[in-house]
Amino acid sequence: MEELAASLVSAAGETSGLAMARQILDRYTAMDDAAKQGLFVHLATAMNIAPNAVRDSLAAYEASPSKTTYRAFMAAAEPQRQELIRRLNQVPGATGVLVGMRADLLRLGESEPALQALDLDFRHLFASWFNRGFLVLRPITWESPAHILEKIIAYEAVHTIDSWEDLRRRLAPADRRCFAFFHPSMPDEPLIFVEVALTDGVPTSIQSVLSETRTQLAPEAANTAVFYSISNCQEGLASISFGNSLIKQVAADLSVVLPGLTTFVTLSPIPGLMTWLETAPEPDRMPVLAAQYLLEAKRPDGRPRDPVTRFHLGNGAEVYAVHANADKSAKGMAQSAGVMVSYLYDLDRVAQNHERYATGHEVIASPEVHSLAAQAETIPA
Amino acid sequence: MEELAASLVSAAGETSGLAMARQILDRYTAMDDAAKQGLFVHLATAMNIAPNAVRDSLAAYEASPSKTTYRAFMAAAEPQRQELIRRLNQVPGATGVLVGMRADLLRLGESEPALQALDLDFRHLFASWFNRGFLVLRPITWESPAHILEKIIAYEAVHTIDSWEDLRRRLAPADRRCFAFFHPSMPDEPLIFVEVALTDGVPTSIQSVLSETRTQLAPEAANTAVFYSISNCQEGLASISFGNSLIKQVAADLSVVLPGLTTFVTLSPIPGLMTWLETAPEPDRMPVLAAQYLLEAKRPDGRPRDPVTRFHLGNGAEVYAVHANADKSAKGMAQSAGVMVSYLYDLDRVAQNHERYATGHEVIASPEVHSLAAQAETIPA
Amino acid sequence: MEELAASLVSAAGETSGLAMARQILDRYTAMDDAAKQGLFVHLATAMNIAPNAVRDSLAAYEASPSKTTYRAFMAAAEPQRQELIRRLNQVPGATGVLVGMRADLLRLGESEPALQALDLDFRHLFASWFNRGFLVLRPITWESPAHILEKIIAYEAVHTIDSWEDLRRRLAPADRRCFAFFHPSMPDEPLIFVEVALTDGVPTSIQSVLSETRTQLAPEAANTAVFYSISNCQEGLASISFGNSLIKQVAADLSVVLPGLTTFVTLSPIPGLMTWLETAPEPDRMPVLAAQYLLEAKRPDGRPRDPVTRFHLGNGAEVYAVHANADKSAKGMAQSAGVMVSYLYDLDRVAQNHERYATGHEVIASPEVHSLAAQAETIPA
Amino acid sequence: MEELAASLVSAAGETSGLAMARQILDRYTAMDDAAKQGLFVHLATAMNIAPNAVRDSLAAYEASPSKTTYRAFMAAAEPQRQELIRRLNQVPGATGVLVGMRADLLRLGESEPALQALDLDFRHLFASWFNRGFLVLRPITWESPAHILEKIIAYEAVHTIDSWEDLRRRLAPADRRCFAFFHPSMPDEPLIFVEVALTDGVPTSIQSVLSETRTQLAPEAANTAVFYSISNCQEGLASISFGNSLIKQVAADLSVVLPGLTTFVTLSPIPGLMTWLETAPEPDRMPVLAAQYLLEAKRPDGRPRDPVTRFHLGNGAEVYAVHANADKSAKGMAQSAGVMVSYLYDLDRVAQNHERYATGHEVIASPEVHSLAAQAETIPA
Repeated sequence: MEELAASLVSAAGETSGLAMARQILDRYTAMDDAAKQGLFVHLATAMNIAPNAVRDSLAAYEASPSKTTYRAFMAAAEPQRQELIRRLNQVPGATGVLVGMRADLLRLGESEPALQALDLDFRHLFASWFNRGFLVLRPITWESPAHILEKIIAYEAVHTIDSWEDLRRRLAPADRRCFAFFHPSMPDEPLIFVEVALTDGVPTSIQSVLSETRTQLAPEAANTAVFYSISNCQEGLASISFGNSLIKQVAADLSVVLPGLTTFVTLSPIPGLMTWLETAPEPDRMPVLAAQYLLEAKRPDGRPRDPVTRFHLGNGAEVYAVHANADKSAKGMAQSAGVMVSYLYDLDRVAQNHERYATGHEVIASPEVHSLAAQAETIPA
Repeated sequence: MEELAASLVSAAGETSGLAMARQILDRYTAMDDAAKQGLFVHLATAMNIAPNAVRDSLAAYEASPSKTTYRAFMAAAEPQRQELIRRLNQVPGATGVLVGMRADLLRLGESEPALQALDLDFRHLFASWFNRGFLVLRPITWESPAHILEKIIAYEAVHTIDSWEDLRRRLAPADRRCFAFFHPSMPDEPLIFVEVALTDGVPTSIQSVLSETRTQLAPEAANTAVFYSISNCQEGLASISFGNSLIKQVAADLSVVLPGLTTFVTLSPIPGLMTWLETAPEPDRMPVLAAQYLLEAKRPDGRPRDPVTRFHLGNGAEVYAVHANADKSAKGMAQSAGVMVSYLYDLDRVAQNHERYATGHEVIASPEVHSLAAQAETIPA
Repeated sequence: MEELAASLVSAAGETSGLAMARQILDRYTAMDDAAKQGLFVHLATAMNIAPNAVRDSLAAYEASPSKTTYRAFMAAAEPQRQELIRRLNQVPGATGVLVGMRADLLRLGESEPALQALDLDFRHLFASWFNRGFLVLRPITWESPAHILEKIIAYEAVHTIDSWEDLRRRLAPADRRCFAFFHPSMPDEPLIFVEVALTDGVPTSIQSVLSETRTQLAPEAANTAVFYSISNCQEGLASISFGNSLIKQVAADLSVVLPGLTTFVTLSPIPGLMTWLETAPEPDRMPVLAAQYLLEAKRPDGRPRDPVTRFHLGNGAEVYAVHANADKSAKGMAQSAGVMVSYLYDLDRVAQNHERYATGHEVIASPEVHSLAAQAETIPA
Repeated sequence: MEELAASLVSAAGETSGLAMARQILDRYTAMDDAAKQGLFVHLATAMNIAPNAVRDSLAAYEASPSKTTYRAFMAAAEPQRQELIRRLNQVPGATGVLVGMRADLLRLGESEPALQALDLDFRHLFASWFNRGFLVLRPITWESPAHILEKIIAYEAVHTIDSWEDLRRRLAPADRRCFAFFHPSMPDEPLIFVEVALTDGVPTSIQSVLSETRTQLAPEAANTAVFYSISNCQEGLASISFGNSLIKQVAADLSVVLPGLTTFVTLSPIPGLMTWLETAPEPDRMPVLAAQYLLEAKRPDGRPRDPVTRFHLGNGAEVYAVHANADKSAKGMAQSAGVMVSYLYDLDRVAQNHERYATGHEVIASPEVHSLAAQAETIPA
């Protein structure tokens, strides 16, 4: 295997490497975890940068900057394993296998610095390959192929889809939508998807959104689009930032098709609330404390403590409203005593919101949520 | 413009940069050559690597290899302009504009070392984006969209297509085929295409292949597939090596669909022959001299002097046959006194041929061509 | 409604009738059964042929055959309701509504001679519209749209599909296939579909074919294609004969794709066996009696008593093998004490088989089934 | 051939006729005109209705109306050749061949009453098969397949398309559109198409519309859609009325996509003007006489003398404006001394206009055209 890998990155491998690449991928797929880890360690060490070569080529480039010296520096400064991954990708269908390979690496290499460094190479290439400009936004409907839909069921990470009937209720009605990003080389694999409810006003309970007996709304009568679930599908694409644009893109597209839509909000969980509180106080106080948590609880780096908050604020959204008793499922009660939060996507403000958040970690919120949070400070627990 | 570019590669630019990227691309498109050159110089200098930063981060990584130090080194060793190009590519349709930008750069920066270095960054990214695994092979037929076909007419670089009627003769008959590589983000732009004639035996004249009055052959009766024209379409993708696999892929696909095909050859020009000879000797000696040229004329680096020879031998093909009076067009007479050559793609041998060529620059040829060339040495001009 | 119908078939209705047609269809859809029946009676009587007009136009045509007199005869001999149905069909999507209308008519008009005659007009038009040449054969796979697949679940009439998991088992494995006829104007509605198992040898039990735990076969290793379920989907297309060609078409297509397939058989129920026998004898005698029933039990018109037998023999198939204990489901035990039958589609013989059956009602069967049946005559029950 | 035809319509032919049908169509295609005419005469005579059978079955039906007697009457009243044509149509691709067969029949049987009657049978079936509800409206653009576009060039009947460049000028600009009806069984054959110019105001010259040097208009800035050419493509579909709805459908679709469009007019030739006038008077008088011709020249049946006028008024359009010097081509000068006419499609009035025209042959025209025509009466030629 190691010889194969070396041959593939050699000069001759550039044009005749398809068979070798296929062989490597096939063997990889058949490996157990120990063998995979062995391979990763090999890539991380034997195919790493050679510091002296980097230094020498850098010196040569500085002394005499030219196409030749720059090319030599580029070659030295990039570890061979990046070229290996690119050449493996020549095989039709390889992209998905490589994404799976990174998922394995993340699982097996979590605590190993050399493997973490190797992961940065995967991540660097994937950021380039899964660039927003290469992705395709596709609606997911009840007319979508079943083999895609079964993946939606499997990948839904926020509010479990129980059955095909449950899926049908989220896709088939005219006031329900779903959109996913796909990559052309992985046409059967959604990368990330968002589920949307078109409503009259902002709903205050996820159970009302998902109810089997709710009354449908004519899409033209809706004034609000609620992003009530957003799920990443590929562990091997962790930290690749294409998710940032999904909600904004969907909001922009929907506002063209349905000009009656004026409000774009989420209905989001607050996964870290109970851990922060440690124990739940009386139910009446929960919204106040949730507002306080969302606005004031921070990580050491100054960003919000809650990962969902970081995601939406990083996209330019604002904390818009806190909803008590909004998720009565076991999971909802356990993580946030049933409290949920809506983040607002105001397309006219996301750019400047994002800027303020990115530069000063500012948590932008509505006056209502600010006053809720303010109560927490004056009224002791 | 320079400020916009700086903002786009800043931290905040990662998720909110779409509008900036669009603006940069729009402004670029409207620029004249002087302004473009100015921008390129800015990218080449202000967004270049900082040697000291590379050195320091390398030292830190060596001292303590970790995810953090490796990430810092990666960031320092890659010039910011690469990240800029990636972020520009977030805009739908940007890939084609960036390919055009590199075409401009190649045209304007030919003799400027700093711009040549900048070109290496474009090339590095494009090699990753236009990886064989991302390309789609599509047949080009008389049923293809007209706006694609007019590009085939425009891009044909070997044997000019005179008219839509001429194009029809190359696409519509059952014994004529054409295939092109496309990239999913540039669906209307062929990247490279090859024209194929299905024949009984190897043809010895391009005019017979293109004749308006030739007799058609039932595809099932053909034993030979002749690749009689191969054209790169995008100047901005110069030196990106996807062309290597086109002929082999098409040969493999055709041999499945038409199992009667046993021979896969080109009918190729010899563009450098007359320049090498300086003046044409009597016609009878031309094939002998052509064989000698193909087998023995070398560049300083030891590779064949003829660019077409380098292309096909680099793919693993062999020099198969020399044809006198094979191209009587003005261009054919001027460049090679009408002599053409067939390169053979024997799919069972291309890998080992390629290996021998890549490692020792060996020019593999049929016994017939070897004996032709041998005559040149014994019989003085 | 009756006025609208009259206007629509008037001269002016030919080109401006779209709005009227739409209105009629909308009103029809909202009607209850009594109103529908009233409308059918109106069509059957007020829009019937006028015998005197037929007679007079026929006499005029006989006296002086010309374009004019023939046209007048054609107009008189065709009831206006046919023209009405054609004009209703101008509305996009109308074809499906009209098929539903005939389903209503069959349900409501079963015992009413005038309505049975009206049904002949629908049937006459539908036979023309659903002509084999207009139908499209499409594979149904696990990649098909979910809204089509849920109809496959709903329309399966032979071996109930319990769940999406059950459906997946019938579509996703490489040794399972499904094909349906569609009409271009009803793209979301399968008309008839057949489920196929690719096997090694003829299976002798439907439970083994449908087993959750069976071992899959590589399609290339299969020598037999088993049509184990065929279902009509549209009640409104009863007696339209497109089903005749489905199995033959699928067999022909599969034999091209998988040349290893040599035997094309069904695994069919014998729905009328127990009714004919009245009570089941000891299990050992069932195959003998089933063979006798299939070969000798006749309707008054001389055709086989069993409807499934009539269908397959009418297609040119042969009675091939009788399988004891082949369907242990409650339905299978009730209708045939678990006995099933395979009909053989030998594509080289279907035309002549069909001819023999069509002209003399001959039941063609294998020697094995003939000897089984012969035992019934010598061994008394 | 005659035996084959007889077999195909026999009882056995219903389900096993595919091979026979294919054979008949293949033989037909190879026939010369004399053989075709012989076949048509056979169909017209040997497969005609049998008057006595019609009479007897009618009497039986009258005496006892039932499903059985009605079915017998239907069978007798329809000539067997209709069933023959339907069964021929089972072959994939047959529909196009049958349309060609009718074109042959129209050409060969023009003056033969029996063949004219046979044509009515074709026409009767085609009216049912090419029902508006089965047709598909598709835009024709510069992205359409070349084999479709070459048919647009060939079938353009009003203003000849000189070259692919000319075609490109009619399809590629954003202010030019083209739409065609297709039948699902003839996907490569347009049935009828219309070319549209989006303009600011009603143009008064076809040369200005087709000019190579005209200034393009942003589609959103257009207030007028001009239907400047409409061509039937299939001679074998003469008199089948689907053309009636093309312009109205296109107008309705365009007004949704481009709400700025307020006027839908044609720019039409007046093919019969010069024949009616016999000799052209001084140019100044031409518009007056054209108005008079359009409004007052009638056929014996009371409808307008000009076929283009009949077509548009039959669709519910109105005579809107007369344009002098509007078509300076040789053809335009010869048929109407350069005068053209615009018919207006006011979608709110077409239904009532059509009604008035259909019932009383009323020629609806604008006040301007009425006053033009009035001048003709007061001012002698």
